[in-house]
Amino acid sequence: MRPAMAILCATAAAVLSGAAEAQVLKEFGSFHVGGRQASLSGYPVTESVFTQGAPPTRVDPNGDFEVEQMYVQYLIPEPQRARYPLLMWHGGGLTGVTWDTKPDGQPGFMQYFFRAGHPVYVSDAVERGRASWARYPEIYKTPPFFRTKKEAWEQFRIGPAYATDPARRVATPGGRFPVQAFDQFAKQFVPRWTSNDAITQRAYDALVEKVGPSVVMVHSQAGNFGFRAALNAPGTVKGLIALEPAGAPAPGPELDRLTAIPMLIVWGDNIGSEPVWVRQQPFSLAFAADLKARGGDVEVIELPKVGITGNDHMIMMDTNSDQVAGLIEDWMRRKGLLRER
Amino acid sequence: MRPAMAILCATAAAVLSGAAEAQVLKEFGSFHVGGRQASLSGYPVTESVFTQGAPPTRVDPNGDFEVEQMYVQYLIPEPQRARYPLLMWHGGGLTGVTWDTKPDGQPGFMQYFFRAGHPVYVSDAVERGRASWARYPEIYKTPPFFRTKKEAWEQFRIGPAYATDPARRVATPGGRFPVQAFDQFAKQFVPRWTSNDAITQRAYDALVEKVGPSVVMVHSQAGNFGFRAALNAPGTVKGLIALEPAGAPAPGPELDRLTAIPMLIVWGDNIGSEPVWVRQQPFSLAFAADLKARGGDVEVIELPKVGITGNDHMIMMDTNSDQVAGLIEDWMRRKGLLRER
Repeated sequence: MRPAMAILCATAAAVLSGAAEAQVLKEFGSFHVGGRQASLSGYPVTESVFTQGAPPTRVDPNGDFEVEQMYVQYLIPEPQRARYPLLMWHGGGLTGVTWDTKPDGQPGFMQYFFRAGHPVYVSDAVERGRASWARYPEIYKTPPFFRTKKEAWEQFRIGPAYATDPARRVATPGGRFPVQAFDQFAKQFVPRWTSNDAITQRAYDALVEKVGPSVVMVHSQAGNFGFRAALNAPGTVKGLIALEPAGAPAPGPELDRLTAIPMLIVWGDNIGSEPVWVRQQPFSLAFAADLKARGGDVEVIELPKVGITGNDHMIMMDTNSDQVAGLIEDWMRRKGLLRER
Repeated sequence: MRPAMAILCATAAAVLSGAAEAQVLKEFGSFHVGGRQASLSGYPVTESVFTQGAPPTRVDPNGDFEVEQMYVQYLIPEPQRARYPLLMWHGGGLTGVTWDTKPDGQPGFMQYFFRAGHPVYVSDAVERGRASWARYPEIYKTPPFFRTKKEAWEQFRIGPAYATDPARRVATPGGRFPVQAFDQFAKQFVPRWTSNDAITQRAYDALVEKVGPSVVMVHSQAGNFGFRAALNAPGTVKGLIALEPAGAPAPGPELDRLTAIPMLIVWGDNIGSEPVWVRQQPFSLAFAADLKARGGDVEVIELPKVGITGNDHMIMMDTNSDQVAGLIEDWMRRKGLLRER
């Protein structure tokens, strides 16, 4: 049997399964990347009960720990229709779940791009989710920050007015977020630290080095990490897609290093309704303008300007996420990031 | 085309891929289950910088949060050869990564059972990994506990003597843990609380209710949660596999509720070398003896007694994990938990 048969059969199986997502999974797995050993000493010893009914256990906090690593999970489809693996980097106070099933239970970007034939690598940044976190103030320098539902509702432009009672929350008129699933989305929130940017960058750089030539998709806080990873490994990052990046490198000669990397920046709707984005959006627009002036290949899509309205900060969770993913897939096709069929 | 063709094609695709793990992925996704809204008020407001170069953000810790939920990820294979989904519940201070790729990069139990045709549901318990955790002492009552590498090395029976320098660590003679990957394993450790058993049980019970009839595989700390979930939903838990359960319900009439559920308890080697297990193993052995006396269907496999030596507490990460998974798969076949071929 020749390889072409495998493709045919996989397609047949997908059709027969009755589920749009059926696909041959060539391989899946996970790993931690980056990090180092940290040691503590001089703290008092206590006793604690860890399992109901079990006797107390002696707790000695002193010793060695692994810290500052990142968690990465990958799914490799067959056939592979993308030229490179797609690394998906979440925003602040969140984990890789950002890309997976949406809070309303519908397939998300991870499903979309896997089904489209991209090997998907979804990470939990340092200190978030399965990456684990370290004791503070002994290892991390500051305490963590817990995002409230109100802040997410407002800053993510879900709507103008949050209330504890879901029935009393006011959503953006014409907004695309599945507001009935907002509390489910809030279950995805994880604490974050303000003091870990440098170690997080190191772990992302280590991830790019480990996976090799790849396309990076970033959201929000990960914007800076993605642009910086491209600056640090311009021969390895083969494309960069930034969804509402919270920041970007300042214009300047440094950006000459990025001219060979196709970049796409996507912004949703109603930016003007929230001061955070009025303040933050100009960073990536200035970056794009400067990079373009230097001969770079960067495209900015402001969704309302192409007739797609109502998207908030969590574009990949919006009810029209497949439409936006389709725009991204089209851009990747135009940039030669997909395999010829 | 008839369904039989889909199976044939999937098998052909798997063979052609050249990877033993190739399999049709009918569906994959994730969800959070359980939890509730918690509100805080009266704490001081501060300012903090979250993204390098961004201006300071006002941090108001007061507000509403979702807490006490659990994270669950599932992969559904096609064809499905198991009668029920397999829920995989990790032990203390760990996450669902326990079941995924082993620290040495080899396929783990998640890969094994997915490939064998089980829908796999891997969870991160409340407070661990992607489940997120809540502020203490305002919401959780106690501070978290961070496991040291030394404690893991000793309590998990990797070896008798830990040292900071990997070259100076003493491993168990004939032990099966891939000791060169121990630091990689330590990157999987997450903090744990001692005060969350009741809320964790509620989330596991909610998971069983959501997924419906299923087989539950538990490890270490999850032993108690699994046995208790079976007691709480004896008609829904169709089988229970406990790997080195840290505890078990006390013998007594309550166990009459479990007599219709096939159960398998597996213990590794060198139990006598570590006081924790000398103390904890008798709980599950007494449970098994009492359940058997009541007409229950419970089997205990002590691996050295069936000629499999050198397994530590992390059986699913040991170099012979496929062999142990094979024993479990055989037991499931004998208990009618697999579909007839």
